[in-house]
Amino acid sequence: MSAETRLSARLAQLGIQMPPPPAAKGLYKTVVFHGRLAYVSGHLPVAPSGEIVRGKLGEDCDVEAGRRAAELAALGILATLRAALGSLERVRRVIRIFGMVNAAPRFDQQPAVINGASQLLADVFGPEHGVGARSAMGAGSLPLGVPVEIEAVFEVEPPPGIAAD
Amino acid sequence: MSAETRLSARLAQLGIQMPPPPAAKGLYKTVVFHGRLAYVSGHLPVAPSGEIVRGKLGEDCDVEAGRRAAELAALGILATLRAALGSLERVRRVIRIFGMVNAAPRFDQQPAVINGASQLLADVFGPEHGVGARSAMGAGSLPLGVPVEIEAVFEVEPPPGIAAD
Amino acid sequence: MSAETRLSARLAQLGIQMPPPPAAKGLYKTVVFHGRLAYVSGHLPVAPSGEIVRGKLGEDCDVEAGRRAAELAALGILATLRAALGSLERVRRVIRIFGMVNAAPRFDQQPAVINGASQLLADVFGPEHGVGARSAMGAGSLPLGVPVEIEAVFEVEPPPGIAAD
Repeated sequence: MSAETRLSARLAQLGIQMPPPPAAKGLYKTVVFHGRLAYVSGHLPVAPSGEIVRGKLGEDCDVEAGRRAAELAALGILATLRAALGSLERVRRVIRIFGMVNAAPRFDQQPAVINGASQLLADVFGPEHGVGARSAMGAGSLPLGVPVEIEAVFEVEPPPGIAAD
Repeated sequence: MSAETRLSARLAQLGIQMPPPPAAKGLYKTVVFHGRLAYVSGHLPVAPSGEIVRGKLGEDCDVEAGRRAAELAALGILATLRAALGSLERVRRVIRIFGMVNAAPRFDQQPAVINGASQLLADVFGPEHGVGARSAMGAGSLPLGVPVEIEAVFEVEPPPGIAAD
Repeated sequence: MSAETRLSARLAQLGIQMPPPPAAKGLYKTVVFHGRLAYVSGHLPVAPSGEIVRGKLGEDCDVEAGRRAAELAALGILATLRAALGSLERVRRVIRIFGMVNAAPRFDQQPAVINGASQLLADVFGPEHGVGARSAMGAGSLPLGVPVEIEAVFEVEPPPGIAAD
């Protein structure tokens, strides 16, 4: 089963559609390729309605809502990669996930929140290639008041026209 | 027009001079090269007077002051790269910027602050090579009480004597 | 003197033994290899007793305790690398350390805390290869309430059976 098929299955299960690739919210590119690596910018959670998800863990957002926000941020990353690469079949594996959780000072369940993103990537790319190195940490605040921001590095087949040098 | 020329123009516009490359504030190197990548340590904003800029966004530092601090941190990164490479002409492009903003718990304009650094890099290296992947996030606190810390990865021509392996 | 010998000497000095490599606390791998780089996941400080070290700098943990926690997190990283590579002799050098300090909003001595990790790496791999690029920053909160989390990238001889691509 292909990554695209597994993604479709997961989206059907969630009852949502693949979001459009997010536009940059500042002076940056959503993804940059160097050799076989794709450096993916920090992605924020966008609901299927197109609204940015807001909240702070330990205050007005519980772990389950944070987990869903992390999954939405990861969906945005997949949308970015698919748009840049033409297909998720060109993604070889996850190298690194950096998961930032907007949380109260004594919140301590960042890994459970970021698992929402990690689980989606494992579902789509499989338990070996979809699981990489990871840090889950607590941010004091995040852009637009989102509960989760996720940055990532993937190993990919370089997009057509870009040498793997 | 070269990167050095564009930097000189921007410095003249700001009415400031290129700072000396910052010394490490702990047990680290300000930049490490591996292959064609330069891993640049987190840089803090240093004013033209040599003083460290202090403040917390959403408390005693507004977005415009934060933006200027981010530009100063990026200037320090350019000073580090120029000292290590001999010339900014050896910088090919920005790969990744990681921008940390020292902010109050409900501050949400981290991207506007980090744009101060991104704009300088775009001015110096151009809108294609000067713009890379990026995360802007809110730190709960930062070294020496600075408002902004910026870490980065650049693609470079390796410095003379270092193989691109 | 080899890295393994220097590590043994430092452990003897500390009066502790090398910890077992930590298990992942979520859906991730503790280290991922790509080419000659090892991407090491965020590691938390584990005491010789096996207990997770807890505390927040500027509240219930002083700089010296934070420094020791950072050293313990770095020891966990060494345990992870040794288990994955077979021997620390396969580590060539430190590329990047990302040190997160769980701290009160006005705490400003993150570099002194993270030096605990940097010093251990310098002791084990030497003042040239054991010192890399680094960012030290203040997290608003961290997993399990730990005072320090450390992520890292090392240059390594790839483990047997993994091509350097």
